[in-house]
Order: sequence, then C-alpha cells, then structure tokens
Amino acid sequence: MKQGAKATRDRILDAGLDLLSTSGFAGVTLGVLADKVGMSKSGLFAHFSSKEEVELELLSRTFDIAANQVMSAAMRAPQGLPRLEAAVLGWFGWFVKAGFPGGCPVAAAMFELDDVDGPVRDKVLAHAKQWDETIRQLVIDAITTKHLRKNLDVDQFLWELHGIYLGHHVALRFFRDSDADSRAKKAFQRLVESALPIASSRSSKQKLVTKRK
Amino acid sequence: MKQGAKATRDRILDAGLDLLSTSGFAGVTLGVLADKVGMSKSGLFAHFSSKEEVELELLSRTFDIAANQVMSAAMRAPQGLPRLEAAVLGWFGWFVKAGFPGGCPVAAAMFELDDVDGPVRDKVLAHAKQWDETIRQLVIDAITTKHLRKNLDVDQFLWELHGIYLGHHVALRFFRDSDADSRAKKAFQRLVESALPIASSRSSKQKLVTKRK
Repeated sequence: MKQGAKATRDRILDAGLDLLSTSGFAGVTLGVLADKVGMSKSGLFAHFSSKEEVELELLSRTFDIAANQVMSAAMRAPQGLPRLEAAVLGWFGWFVKAGFPGGCPVAAAMFELDDVDGPVRDKVLAHAKQWDETIRQLVIDAITTKHLRKNLDVDQFLWELHGIYLGHHVALRFFRDSDADSRAKKAFQRLVESALPIASSRSSKQKLVTKRK
Repeated sequence: MKQGAKATRDRILDAGLDLLSTSGFAGVTLGVLADKVGMSKSGLFAHFSSKEEVELELLSRTFDIAANQVMSAAMRAPQGLPRLEAAVLGWFGWFVKAGFPGGCPVAAAMFELDDVDGPVRDKVLAHAKQWDETIRQLVIDAITTKHLRKNLDVDQFLWELHGIYLGHHVALRFFRDSDADSRAKKAFQRLVESALPIASSRSSKQKLVTKRK
C-alpha cells in the first residue's frame, strides 16, 4: 500500500473510532464518516469496499489499542496478583485513558449486536474470548505464585470480573458517577479477597488488596 | 381516547417493544414500525407525533412490565432476605420471562444513549433510579429483619448487584452461554454472603443462600 493511501486510511479509521465510541455501529455510516474526514462517499470507497470492512477494521484497531495499553502497564508490575491487579485496574475505563470520546466499543457491541448475527458480531466474540484468555492467564499465574488459591473457580472469577467491568462502564458513562472508579476497585478487591488462599490471615489479605491504592 | 384508537396505539407499542428489544432505539424508526403493524407512516402519525414520543412510551411500558412482573413475584416471598432474593432472581433475565424477543431495553440504552443527551436518556435515568430505589428498599428491609448486617454499605451492594445484572445480560444474550443463570446466581450468593451479619455461622449462611435453589 502506498504511504499516502495508508495515511488516509488511518485518518478514516481514527475518525471512525470516535464515531463508534460515541454512537455505536449504528452511528458509523459511510456518509457521516466521509463528512468527518472531508471526503466524498465515493472517495471513501477507494479505501474501503463496504461499511462492514470499516467495522471489522475498527474492531481490530480498538482491540489492539486496549490490549497494548492495558498489558504494557501490567507487565511492569511483578508477576502474580500485582500484575493481575494492574491489568484489571488498567482495563476499567481504558477507553478514557486512550482518549476515546465515548465508551468501550466492545462492551457497547455486546448489547447492540446481541441479535445481529454476522462477521461483525463474530469478531466481537473472538476479541472478547481473546481478552478473556489474556486475563485468565494472569489469574492462573496468580494461582501459580500462590497469591490466589489453587481451588479457585477461575471461570466464575472471570465471569464476575466481567460484570464489574460492565457495572463500571455504566456507572462512569451512563450515570456519570464520580464514584465509579472507587466502587469498581472495591468490588474487585472483594472478588480478590474471596480468591485468596484460605490460610491467608486477615492482615495479609488486607496488605494484598490495599497496597495498590 | 376512543377504544379503537387505544387498541391501535397498543398494537403499535407492542410491535415497538419487539423492535426496541432486538435493535435498540436506533432500530425503532417510524417507517419500520409502520411496516410492522401494516399501516402507512402517516397513519402512524395519527397516533404519535414523533419518534421521541414513541420512544418515551416504550420506556414507560418496558418499566411497567418489568416492575410488575418482578415485584408481584417477590411480594409472595416472606419479607427480608427471601423477598430480596426472589426480586433479584426474578430481575435477572426478566425480559426472557416477559417474552421479549431481544434483551432488556433499559440495559441496552445505558450503552446506546450514554452520549445522547435528551428526554429519552433522562427517562432511562429516572427509571433506573426508580428501580434502584425499589431494590434498595428490599435491602433495607432485609437489614431491618436482621437477615443482612446493619453496617452494610448499601450503595456498594446495589452497585455490585447492578454489575451482576449486566454480566448476566451479556452472558445470556451476547455469549448465549447456557451457564448464565447459574453463574449469576452464584455471584449474587457471594454478594449476599458478604452482607450477612458477622455472627452468622457458616451453616446458617449456607441455609440462607441455598434454600431457594
């Protein structure tokens, strides 16, 4: 691909991400997108063959931004529970830190596309599973380092964590609640406490879950 | 309002609820709605002056259906924790039990309308707060009956409960996960356990949280 064409494509996708973040897939129409980047709709078709191609590219770009941002911060924390905590607290509200004007396109898609079968839904599903596997590995590492207990129900842990992520998203974005971050942190701490080795004393528990404040 | 006009209006709103449940507010266009009920768009305008009026009516209808269904079942359970549990378990997936073809319009709106200020967002917010107050009263009743502890952080309890509701919605509707109900129940049980009076023995805890299985 020529350099100029790639730059234009990137510019279109950047504008598309802003649109997707604020208005969902329903808001990403090629007409509105062409307007936003100051080109004609047929000019836009020189770069993308369909609305679906744009949507799939936007999902890839969203996922790359989120995963790189969250994981590069987490990898600087020590292995085990500290790294899991860094990843989770970086995940909550990652879209704000990444400069997205609206919310998380993947979370919104889980409501917008639940009844819309097709390649876009499939890609959201694939990315969600990939992210689930990334976090799952951090939980398993925290079990290996004995920060979390061996008999933890990892599926249930991940399930509840996902609920906290969604609760935080709604608190932050829909209710515009200034306590969203602290509430989500508290909920996550309670989840971690329930996953500590049974032998952990109360004081060692508290050390583990409060030191990152 | 004449009986015939009311019947037509009801028929339009029923079709609108199906649309809203599967496609969100973006999917409720007057053209599609008119098609679904077999009338012209101008015929539809005889009953509703705008898309916004339809949307506001659909929200009221959704809220009435959900609140009546969930609370009428809950009121048959004994006061205190049993009633709270009945309400919460009835709330999870209420839209399936009510015959909605898609998901919960209010939950979806919390992602779709987070950046769309106006009367529709305001009404979703008002209904969400009203529902929060209903559940809050059940939590307070369970504290009064001494099923839950006096020093419970009720705001945090409700916040986490909301996260479980959203997690269940996504598990059920987006991931189409057959374990969605049992995962949500387990998450809620863990939340209730953390809210029991400190003096409660493990066995009495288990009795409280498992008897409704």
